[in-house]
Amino acid sequence: MSRLIQYDEAGPEVRAVFDEIKAARGLADVNNFWKALAVDPALLRQTWDRLRVVMAPGALDPLTKELLYIAISATAGCSYCVASHTASARAKGMTEAMHGELLAVLAMAGQTNRLAEALRVPVDPGFE
Amino acid sequence: MSRLIQYDEAGPEVRAVFDEIKAARGLADVNNFWKALAVDPALLRQTWDRLRVVMAPGALDPLTKELLYIAISATAGCSYCVASHTASARAKGMTEAMHGELLAVLAMAGQTNRLAEALRVPVDPGFE
Amino acid sequence: MSRLIQYDEAGPEVRAVFDEIKAARGLADVNNFWKALAVDPALLRQTWDRLRVVMAPGALDPLTKELLYIAISATAGCSYCVASHTASARAKGMTEAMHGELLAVLAMAGQTNRLAEALRVPVDPGFE
Amino acid sequence: MSRLIQYDEAGPEVRAVFDEIKAARGLADVNNFWKALAVDPALLRQTWDRLRVVMAPGALDPLTKELLYIAISATAGCSYCVASHTASARAKGMTEAMHGELLAVLAMAGQTNRLAEALRVPVDPGFE
Amino acid sequence: MSRLIQYDEAGPEVRAVFDEIKAARGLADVNNFWKALAVDPALLRQTWDRLRVVMAPGALDPLTKELLYIAISATAGCSYCVASHTASARAKGMTEAMHGELLAVLAMAGQTNRLAEALRVPVDPGFE
Amino acid sequence: MSRLIQYDEAGPEVRAVFDEIKAARGLADVNNFWKALAVDPALLRQTWDRLRVVMAPGALDPLTKELLYIAISATAGCSYCVASHTASARAKGMTEAMHGELLAVLAMAGQTNRLAEALRVPVDPGFE
Repeated sequence: MSRLIQYDEAGPEVRAVFDEIKAARGLADVNNFWKALAVDPALLRQTWDRLRVVMAPGALDPLTKELLYIAISATAGCSYCVASHTASARAKGMTEAMHGELLAVLAMAGQTNRLAEALRVPVDPGFE
Repeated sequence: MSRLIQYDEAGPEVRAVFDEIKAARGLADVNNFWKALAVDPALLRQTWDRLRVVMAPGALDPLTKELLYIAISATAGCSYCVASHTASARAKGMTEAMHGELLAVLAMAGQTNRLAEALRVPVDPGFE
Repeated sequence: MSRLIQYDEAGPEVRAVFDEIKAARGLADVNNFWKALAVDPALLRQTWDRLRVVMAPGALDPLTKELLYIAISATAGCSYCVASHTASARAKGMTEAMHGELLAVLAMAGQTNRLAEALRVPVDPGFE
Repeated sequence: MSRLIQYDEAGPEVRAVFDEIKAARGLADVNNFWKALAVDPALLRQTWDRLRVVMAPGALDPLTKELLYIAISATAGCSYCVASHTASARAKGMTEAMHGELLAVLAMAGQTNRLAEALRVPVDPGFE
Repeated sequence: MSRLIQYDEAGPEVRAVFDEIKAARGLADVNNFWKALAVDPALLRQTWDRLRVVMAPGALDPLTKELLYIAISATAGCSYCVASHTASARAKGMTEAMHGELLAVLAMAGQTNRLAEALRVPVDPGFE
Repeated sequence: MSRLIQYDEAGPEVRAVFDEIKAARGLADVNNFWKALAVDPALLRQTWDRLRVVMAPGALDPLTKELLYIAISATAGCSYCVASHTASARAKGMTEAMHGELLAVLAMAGQTNRLAEALRVPVDPGFE
């Protein structure tokens, strides 16, 4: 388990990022991911600045982006990321029915991803 | 590369599935994935029957499900699946802007998934 | 694509390994994997020496070991390894029916592996 | 950690699946995987119905299928799945010697899978 | 295969990034990765700006960073990335002996990563 | 969690390996990985013999090899391996600044690995 840097022991660059995260999310404290990443203030700053841009509303709405994040994280086997983005998705309106369908797509793709690898299927010319 | 079973050489169970796929999708022929999977008619049948249910409209719309499928497949490194579901997503209305934002979420999660693993971040009590 | 070292251009350590592989398998030439690995003669020697021991008959028979190798390689997304061990498994007696059931287990596990990750299922005390 | 649905709080569809699992396996209660999956009764039903078919005796015996499941799950990094299928394999007769050889194949493939990726080995024409 | 955007058809934002890459690397043209990423000019800009910072000399020298990139990419199964960073590493001074030892570490970790997963080894208190 | 075999209950082959590990590393006891692997004395012996060779000084220094091991293990999602090799790297001189740059490369590659997969970028002829 990594060292978690608390607000009180953090330097000014880290505190500035923590303050932005808390303000943007309306939270009293930041999640452990940010406290762990604070071991490298520059990486913390870059990650937060980028995340804020990527997850903002755009051609895809924020909830769809959270659903994608859960799906990617479960496929990558990142348990922390699954937990954190499942909580975010619920906060943004993911219902039990939506979660169930996300799980069903994840299970289906788990099946066909491995079959396509095991069968070494050549890409159809029409896809290009 | 796996053996691809063409309609003309297929038995009746395989032809029945191929006919259903062509009818459901309005295609003249099925994709290579199905031709490769036809080496095992029972697995072909099960996979198609399940895919049809999973990808149908529900709490999530079909385009969102295709976006999830692309994201999962790219994370799993399944090149065929990425190609096939990117084509499907475009056919269901994915714009360049939507594709760009999907790529941005994929890149962002690629970054944070690996950081969370490398830092071994403990799950926050509030996520449960 | 990596450089492939042919027998004629290989040094004596590489030739010795190539000779052992050809003799053990009754082949006129070694597969590309070994030609690529020959860029590092010590790694080539270690890999062949270990593979010979691991894949020998024991508590598990050689065909079962090849089935395991296919399943692992498809899960890892190693296309070369899937191709090579599918060929080996066929040479050792894998039937179409056996291949079909292997694919079915691979597909099933693809489904449940990702569900267990996405649901973050706690391990049952009885498993330990 | 996901919410685990106990028999007493489950609806009739979930109870029906739980009853089938307990009867098929001679257990007093179902494993956590099923309790977690019960958040989506349709997905629970589909997964159990399919698992029962896939893991039944056929061209491959049930123990070989469990060995494959362990190998796949360890490669995918699914800790829960490794724990659960290792317990199942032992119950179906996996000895320490068999487990040791499975581990040896897993370790060997871990080595050659990554070497083949890093060397980008082209597939031999003879494999097709 | 993705669409590759050539300099002549690119808009001003893409051309500006391409010009920076060519100048920084002393190349007549950019690699396919950048041409593919140019479908989303903002993502192209962000990725290049970040890569330039991350791969610059620091506490780790640029060659060590390229070795890390190869190792990560081979583990992730990204064939394009392996090819591209192997070329970069050679350009920065990677010898055959260094490449061989990198392959040996990759193979070794492939072995122990999977064994640790399959054995579900608990983390030693002393590591924390 | 796997069974951990302690020195006192181990047979002579296992004790011999444990003694070598303790002597080589100047430790009073071996890590849990070795205690878990001791369920198969032959695999324990092979893994230790190989690890000792691979991680020895050569064209790459031992610290660089540990950095590679961390990067590979985080990409593979092996939490135990990340913990163990992060501890080893610190013992061999990894500073906070080096760790931060390793994390930055890991994050960057996480981003570009997935983008290259999702875009299915064709390998440049110049890389070969």
